[in-house]
Amino acid sequence: MTRSGNLLVGQGGGPTAVINASLLGIVEEARQHRQIERILGMRYGLVGLLKGDIVDLGLEDPQRLRLVGRSPAAALGTCRRRFTPHDATPTLAVLAAHNVRFFLYIGGNDSADTAHQIQALADQSGYDLTCMGVPKTIDNDLAHMDHTPGYGSAARYIATAALNISYDTAAIATTDQVTILEVMGRNAGWLAAASILARTSSDDAPHLVYVPERPVSADCLVRQVKQVVARHGHAVIVATETIRDENGKPWARSTGDDGFGHARLVGAAERMGDVISDSLGLKVRVNKPGSLQRSAGECVSPVDWDEAYLVGKVAVSRAVDGARDMMVTLLRKPGTA
Amino acid sequence: MTRSGNLLVGQGGGPTAVINASLLGIVEEARQHRQIERILGMRYGLVGLLKGDIVDLGLEDPQRLRLVGRSPAAALGTCRRRFTPHDATPTLAVLAAHNVRFFLYIGGNDSADTAHQIQALADQSGYDLTCMGVPKTIDNDLAHMDHTPGYGSAARYIATAALNISYDTAAIATTDQVTILEVMGRNAGWLAAASILARTSSDDAPHLVYVPERPVSADCLVRQVKQVVARHGHAVIVATETIRDENGKPWARSTGDDGFGHARLVGAAERMGDVISDSLGLKVRVNKPGSLQRSAGECVSPVDWDEAYLVGKVAVSRAVDGARDMMVTLLRKPGTA
Repeated sequence: MTRSGNLLVGQGGGPTAVINASLLGIVEEARQHRQIERILGMRYGLVGLLKGDIVDLGLEDPQRLRLVGRSPAAALGTCRRRFTPHDATPTLAVLAAHNVRFFLYIGGNDSADTAHQIQALADQSGYDLTCMGVPKTIDNDLAHMDHTPGYGSAARYIATAALNISYDTAAIATTDQVTILEVMGRNAGWLAAASILARTSSDDAPHLVYVPERPVSADCLVRQVKQVVARHGHAVIVATETIRDENGKPWARSTGDDGFGHARLVGAAERMGDVISDSLGLKVRVNKPGSLQRSAGECVSPVDWDEAYLVGKVAVSRAVDGARDMMVTLLRKPGTA
Repeated sequence: MTRSGNLLVGQGGGPTAVINASLLGIVEEARQHRQIERILGMRYGLVGLLKGDIVDLGLEDPQRLRLVGRSPAAALGTCRRRFTPHDATPTLAVLAAHNVRFFLYIGGNDSADTAHQIQALADQSGYDLTCMGVPKTIDNDLAHMDHTPGYGSAARYIATAALNISYDTAAIATTDQVTILEVMGRNAGWLAAASILARTSSDDAPHLVYVPERPVSADCLVRQVKQVVARHGHAVIVATETIRDENGKPWARSTGDDGFGHARLVGAAERMGDVISDSLGLKVRVNKPGSLQRSAGECVSPVDWDEAYLVGKVAVSRAVDGARDMMVTLLRKPGTA
């Protein structure tokens, strides 16, 4: 078991509507354990850690923290930055200076990797440290778990948005026949797939859902839209921003990388809209809610919030019990929906 | 006073989140008056009228109508189509065939003009008809009234969205420094201006709001963004889709007209983002909620819903009392907020 010391928590990668619930769970659980002396937070994740930009969360008013836990986006600030060998010395210096013995990083695959590398660094250096990953992503693409905190609320946002635009598009179909909703997602179509959750029949919108796992050619897109418009008089399309064509080429243009080395792709739905307009002479409206998908406090799923809070609590209690170099996961009981 | 007969109601222009409240108000008020025999609806506004695509709203279950009244977008369908001299004969034929004596059109300036022209047509032809306009628009740009049903809910959506992305942008500022929220609005900046309503201090986001009433040059944009980022480390910008530069040229590209002869402008925020990226080397994220602004049922303002319902009711009661060729307006009592 790790000896007593301070806990340091950070948030990495894209914000979600419930990532602060995990932060709250961590702080509230940490308060229950004598082994944890002070509860510290790094500003802007790894970026703040390296600069020693550390705040004392134990000084925060508990009531105020509960309000923060109900607020969207990452209250500590976040970053997209990989851990590199050059980071080893400053990281160990800051951890030692603050007597950090529990290191918790809330984030996705890249943040879990950072926690894992810092664990390895500490182990090699003989610095007594327990690292834990706390899962978070709206993409629902983390390994070894059933679903991810952050996904449920973003999925609720998208399902609600798809329902709203299905009414809107049907109403204005005499003028604008096609609406495309462009959805976030790197290589995972979960969020786009969630757009059908408010449908009550297979004839309901959205009529076409394009996910990155399945390429779509311009010919196929035009053919499918034509069929839908012939049947319904209008079409509601949901497309992930990272969809690719039959040659594996993104529909979007790249605008550099996101800091983790992943391509940033912009304009997929706009290009789909141009192809549909040019080929079929239909008017196309593109909606791109962008970061609203991950920050809409009014669409938080209560189940998602509770699970995000829980993974934070469990990360602390397991760490105190001796678990280390792990990420908390959510599994599903067989037979449950 | 108009003699007894049927009432015909339609919805025109862009949908809103509360236009069905006006429809409900009309139907529920019409049920109270003996002079109104049947309550009819035209599908897709003027387009349906000309085709004789008429439904009997009196046959609808009252409970179901109340649910429709709580749903976003135009339940009858809408259109963007001007009334032309060629429409005179079919219009009179359909009105007479259905014994329509009360004609109500829910919509904006263009729809009110259609109601006015149909009134003039009936008067010239000696056909006894009472026409009334029922106001609706998210742009808040109707003449002679304090504010417009539909605006309040869209304003609430935008203020909420601006608050959400202000948290999100502050959280991810180490990677993405600038977020632009592109807002609807033809020549009116009311909706963009509503984005500041959730601010609690002048330092809060959104930091820059660009409205169509005030042109902005690329130089000015870059200078202002640079100042904001120097002060806050990030910038949240709200821009109306129809903003123009110092030469009066739209920042957006035109993609034809909207059916009323108004230009459809696309891509203003995207171009602003490119200018900011190219000039300042900052990463810019563009959010364009598009038709979600006018269809978000979860952001309906209760006051807006009540007023939308009320203007529908008043249009009927005033028409029965002998008013004609008018649009209902909302005025503000002096001294009230």
